[in-house]
Amino acid sequence: MADARQAAWQYAQKNRERFLDELIAFASIPSISTDPNHRPDMQKAAEWAADHLRNLGIKNVQILPTKGHPVVYGEHLEAGSPAPTVLIYGHYDVQPPDPLDLWHSQPFQPTRRGDNLYGRGVSDMKGQVLAGLDAIEAITRTGQLSVNVKFIFEGEEEIGSPSLGPFLASHKDLLASDFALNLDSGIITPDIPAITYALRGLAYFELRLSGPASDLHSGIFGGVVHNPAQVLCELIAGMHDEQGRVTLPGFYDKVRPLDEAERAEMARLPVGEAFYLEKTGAPALFGEAGYSLVERTGARPTLEVNGLLSGFTGEGSKTVLPAKAMAKISMRLVPDQDADEVHQQLLKYLESHAPTTVRWEVIKLAGGPASITDRNTPGVIALSQAMETVWGKKPVFKREGGSIPVVAQMDEILGVNSILAGFGLPDDNLHAPNEKLHLPTWYRGIETIIHFFYNLSN
Amino acid sequence: MADARQAAWQYAQKNRERFLDELIAFASIPSISTDPNHRPDMQKAAEWAADHLRNLGIKNVQILPTKGHPVVYGEHLEAGSPAPTVLIYGHYDVQPPDPLDLWHSQPFQPTRRGDNLYGRGVSDMKGQVLAGLDAIEAITRTGQLSVNVKFIFEGEEEIGSPSLGPFLASHKDLLASDFALNLDSGIITPDIPAITYALRGLAYFELRLSGPASDLHSGIFGGVVHNPAQVLCELIAGMHDEQGRVTLPGFYDKVRPLDEAERAEMARLPVGEAFYLEKTGAPALFGEAGYSLVERTGARPTLEVNGLLSGFTGEGSKTVLPAKAMAKISMRLVPDQDADEVHQQLLKYLESHAPTTVRWEVIKLAGGPASITDRNTPGVIALSQAMETVWGKKPVFKREGGSIPVVAQMDEILGVNSILAGFGLPDDNLHAPNEKLHLPTWYRGIETIIHFFYNLSN
Repeated sequence: MADARQAAWQYAQKNRERFLDELIAFASIPSISTDPNHRPDMQKAAEWAADHLRNLGIKNVQILPTKGHPVVYGEHLEAGSPAPTVLIYGHYDVQPPDPLDLWHSQPFQPTRRGDNLYGRGVSDMKGQVLAGLDAIEAITRTGQLSVNVKFIFEGEEEIGSPSLGPFLASHKDLLASDFALNLDSGIITPDIPAITYALRGLAYFELRLSGPASDLHSGIFGGVVHNPAQVLCELIAGMHDEQGRVTLPGFYDKVRPLDEAERAEMARLPVGEAFYLEKTGAPALFGEAGYSLVERTGARPTLEVNGLLSGFTGEGSKTVLPAKAMAKISMRLVPDQDADEVHQQLLKYLESHAPTTVRWEVIKLAGGPASITDRNTPGVIALSQAMETVWGKKPVFKREGGSIPVVAQMDEILGVNSILAGFGLPDDNLHAPNEKLHLPTWYRGIETIIHFFYNLSN
Repeated sequence: MADARQAAWQYAQKNRERFLDELIAFASIPSISTDPNHRPDMQKAAEWAADHLRNLGIKNVQILPTKGHPVVYGEHLEAGSPAPTVLIYGHYDVQPPDPLDLWHSQPFQPTRRGDNLYGRGVSDMKGQVLAGLDAIEAITRTGQLSVNVKFIFEGEEEIGSPSLGPFLASHKDLLASDFALNLDSGIITPDIPAITYALRGLAYFELRLSGPASDLHSGIFGGVVHNPAQVLCELIAGMHDEQGRVTLPGFYDKVRPLDEAERAEMARLPVGEAFYLEKTGAPALFGEAGYSLVERTGARPTLEVNGLLSGFTGEGSKTVLPAKAMAKISMRLVPDQDADEVHQQLLKYLESHAPTTVRWEVIKLAGGPASITDRNTPGVIALSQAMETVWGKKPVFKREGGSIPVVAQMDEILGVNSILAGFGLPDDNLHAPNEKLHLPTWYRGIETIIHFFYNLSN
């Protein structure tokens, strides 16, 4: 077995450049799920992934329709029934690339500079998907994959996975597995391996305000009309108190408190003020009083304004009193908050704070609960040991601030727990201009997944 | 003389359709001064106005350069030195038409529906410019214009007239006049003539905030970074108190108080809550406590948010924590506020309220003082009597909320007082989609200006 691991690892090393070329090809497809204009690119990306699975010898590869973007499925069941079955999850869709003018190279022409590959989706998560497939290729080309594997790659993760729940519900038998390996995750620094055991949930809304019937001249009407942009600002300003706490009524009621043991373990993570200042470039940090930086990003809920738009925003001056104002507002949720309850809390806040001088409505755009995983399962142990082999040190266990609704859905609908094993880094600029993938970490990721499968089949 | 008036008025009646066709031609030129892409259209509009003056027999017509858009000049000095000289002011530039999707017809294809002509600039102010020229045409084609007239049409009114001050200063002799007739104004309802004797000034700024070096993933960094969009909202929310008063330090210090006589006269204006609710379509009114609606729009200073932009504002959801947030903010000023002092007040407010978690800067985009005019001059009396002739009732005297920096500049630089005589209406959608001109009022305007010139030469 040691020889087989060695052979797979050498294969992966020898094929690094080709693996990279394949990632560049995959990430060149602008599969932006939120934009209807990119529907053909979504299909193209799904077909690219399906073809790639077939080339690896994966069986029963299908592009299965949903009400939205399709799901790519495939399976390797040759290991037989005593061996465990791992459901490998990934997504082939990406975030929009805007603002385009801040990219140093074209988002959909992935470009290598130094140790990094720059392009939309290279880290989130086409690179992670291919890390898993490259590891499987290395194993099957040099020996045998003695674990059963099923693949499910969705095309709607970046828009909140609206079709995945129904898909999981109608394909329970097809997807039956012992646990899921979710590659949509990351570690903290290139030098320290990490396993994510908890994710924050998400509730995402658009708040729309309207006042006058149309944009008004601010000279003629300024003084008698409540400016919707001003009202929007007042409402948003009121959503946090001076301690950085969210003021929506009942927002913290269901938040599971952190026990001292968990807080102590989180305090061991090698990230402090200097880390976050460097990674963000912010002039100073900010957040909820009474909690550490690690707790605030992983274990405490937050409310963020993701976008603001009102009135005239072009060059120069236009003396308009805007008819409308809009904000994208989202909350990161922790156990045991519920996205629908948060929706109700937002409505309640607006009902009691919005003045009668404007009309308002809230559009729910996405929502999913937080999740938290048991750290003593065979899958987690296999991953932990694989990381220790590759990095030469034990992984740290961390909670991640991002949201992966599928983790909660797999748990609820399939009864399948997820292990989060991705190799992104905090400065990968996910969802932002100049997204990148750190290639040395990516190669370590491929090697880790090789060991993970060998550990599982021991 | 009565016969001459009659002949001019009949001429104007007979030529209504052609006057309208000419307005449509003029307003079809998208002379948007704030947009560098429309520079050729600015030149085209200036040439259109110059050609039109020449066709009327106006002498010495020139397109004079400035650092920005050119000024169109012309003169009729045949009345000789005992007759008064009137400086007719107008502007040939218009506001940008966006948001385009709210227009019911193309903004630069002026379209007649019922009593109104719809198009950008038809009321503000190409229609007003042509009302003046049409009246002069009617007089000169049927009799004699016994008043000297100089014309000055600028191309930068909608961007705060930055080049007009230097232009006036370097053309003092050319522009020497007894008073100015500024057609960039309006009345309150079609049935009641009105003369504007005061204008609010303007101070217009762009406030830019930046926090992190680039847009961040709101899951990974939400909780440790102060969201610039949230900070912007907090700063804007703090700019008004609960009484609707502006909180910039010292904002009201120089505001000239209203005396009881003026308040009583303003109370006679036929505009109340129902008027403003109908004109704006707002669900409820709002404003500074302790002042009437008319006082709040005309005689009290205000602060408005003209635009907001931050983060992701497209369709769907993008979980970004924005790096930047921007607001366009402007103040309407009354005597004796000063735009530069208000700039300092804004800076002082930000210095004491902006947190250290963001960087900020303020760009000054436009500024000009308020103005107020003596109501007992020959020009005002001539206009007042002309309106009484046409409408059959005395005009009301009103203060207008808009800002015309040129009025203050003509006063300061040329020593020339302005009479505001335009025929726009409050629901003309100035600076907004579906700008319109009420044609019956426009025709009355032409007739009024005919009488005005005859009254002056009596």
